[in-house]
Amino acid sequence: MTQFQGENELVKEIAGRFARVRSRELRLGIGDDAALWKPKPGFASILTSDWFLEGSHFLLEKHPPDSVGWKCLTRAASDIAAMGGTPRCFLLNLAVPADTTGKWLKGFLGGLRRAASSLDCVLAGGDTTRNKRILISVTVIGEIPEGQEVLRSGARPGDLLYVSGTLGEAEHGLRLLRKSRGRANPQNLAMRKHLYPEPRVELGRWLAENKLATSMMDVSDGLSSDLPRLCHASGVGALLDPGKLPLLRGIVLDSARQLALHGGDDYELLFTVSPNKALPANYRKLKLTQIGEITRGRGVLIIGKDRKPEPLHAAGWDPFRKKFKRG
Amino acid sequence: MTQFQGENELVKEIAGRFARVRSRELRLGIGDDAALWKPKPGFASILTSDWFLEGSHFLLEKHPPDSVGWKCLTRAASDIAAMGGTPRCFLLNLAVPADTTGKWLKGFLGGLRRAASSLDCVLAGGDTTRNKRILISVTVIGEIPEGQEVLRSGARPGDLLYVSGTLGEAEHGLRLLRKSRGRANPQNLAMRKHLYPEPRVELGRWLAENKLATSMMDVSDGLSSDLPRLCHASGVGALLDPGKLPLLRGIVLDSARQLALHGGDDYELLFTVSPNKALPANYRKLKLTQIGEITRGRGVLIIGKDRKPEPLHAAGWDPFRKKFKRG
Repeated sequence: MTQFQGENELVKEIAGRFARVRSRELRLGIGDDAALWKPKPGFASILTSDWFLEGSHFLLEKHPPDSVGWKCLTRAASDIAAMGGTPRCFLLNLAVPADTTGKWLKGFLGGLRRAASSLDCVLAGGDTTRNKRILISVTVIGEIPEGQEVLRSGARPGDLLYVSGTLGEAEHGLRLLRKSRGRANPQNLAMRKHLYPEPRVELGRWLAENKLATSMMDVSDGLSSDLPRLCHASGVGALLDPGKLPLLRGIVLDSARQLALHGGDDYELLFTVSPNKALPANYRKLKLTQIGEITRGRGVLIIGKDRKPEPLHAAGWDPFRKKFKRG
Repeated sequence: MTQFQGENELVKEIAGRFARVRSRELRLGIGDDAALWKPKPGFASILTSDWFLEGSHFLLEKHPPDSVGWKCLTRAASDIAAMGGTPRCFLLNLAVPADTTGKWLKGFLGGLRRAASSLDCVLAGGDTTRNKRILISVTVIGEIPEGQEVLRSGARPGDLLYVSGTLGEAEHGLRLLRKSRGRANPQNLAMRKHLYPEPRVELGRWLAENKLATSMMDVSDGLSSDLPRLCHASGVGALLDPGKLPLLRGIVLDSARQLALHGGDDYELLFTVSPNKALPANYRKLKLTQIGEITRGRGVLIIGKDRKPEPLHAAGWDPFRKKFKRG
């Protein structure tokens, strides 16, 4: 299996796997000191950058390289979706050990290319180096018509709180992966959302275009960690109804509820809608579920025993705390 | 000394050290899912992203945290300068060990803030996580009037080859640092260019605005590695005159020449100028030196013994090869 001899060779391998796409907006891609990007008239750019590190965000011995490639881009693109924008191009910073095989790299670049193609988001540049463990940092540039962005800070008391899809599915997949031997089979449906998350770009754009969402973010660290961030940014509180959470089926109800409250990596959209607006139950087959409402004050509460509101304790994924034992 | 308890706390610490600057262009900075950036009318954005890793790009026990903060931003900004653009905002991806002290972080953020302030380049967002070693990935967004960018690919046979400043100074500083005990004194002048490089933003902008440079890049890996890249992009060759290199003074001539040819991290600008254009010997006290010329064909040659051209062998910094023994 090929090993890479130098940085020029690695850059060539990456460039070779990505067509050198130019567009009216991406005027210059890989190969120069930097890339040139010119948003359409009337559009603003959205900037986001995310870590994806071996040992923290993926495990070399568990995650197929194809999934690593897919996920490092899609989870960063999810931040663009969470503003109501469209991912357009990305920068890839990649560090690999000197003995990383061509096979791993081929799988990684294959998954990355599929994600880029599925999102219509092209490689614009990046940086390569070597390191004992694989390190990935992805920056995504998105676009949005000026003034259409949906922020975390727009929620108002009385707004209804919604989430897309199902919560807890990615965390459930991760737990199955941890218990399984060796690398996951990319075809494994139960692990699919963990291995191949789908950022909700179309939903986000639709909510923004139609001015349906007053605030929005993506659920990446888990609902119990992310909802307080939305409330904090908006200066409001929330009351969550656990009976309404869109749970994973086929597992014990209490586990499903814990997964939905605290599981990370779902990349669903969490958003608020004014009570005057009507929202369908689905958007293009993606379920939209009202899970609570925005309240005055700053407390983030959940309906507990005897329908009594109790504080919701954050137990989502925080790499600095590792409070929530994964798997 | 404080240790950081969670990601929210680390983000707060970073946000606290950077004024939440907004401008007409940076419409939304840290605190939401992503940042919003709208270039001025008639301007394009320049995108670049660079690694800065403990063990590869800096040594925890040798480099003052202040220098780490300064350098991680300025070296990425140098890519913007190399296109003739102006750095405007940046995204910081930072991973630190759980036991990183508040003292280190304070020093790091102090150096980063000084660099940001000196470049007038504001923090727009990023990502934090933890890792056994310190990892930094910086993305800089720059701007340039449409069509004014200077690419690597514009050099033509007969063009004169120029470099700014002195070559080899940063490498010399690194060697002194390696030989010294403990952390460098940030005031050490001999190590200054290694610890606190100055991207040549004003020079790059001046060359671009006045359409003086036909091609340009920054010297980051060493002249013998970077010049072939410029020649390759332009489909030309070059003939270098070692007698003209702007050498470091006060050391043995042969060492100074080797440092100038192969030393990395200088972040000077390497550019070509049509022989019809007149260039001053200095730009705002920064020396501009003609070091050779662009030739037909693809060879990158250097004048050797008896003034005979010989192939120039790349021996600059490549993290995949480590051919050039540092220090």
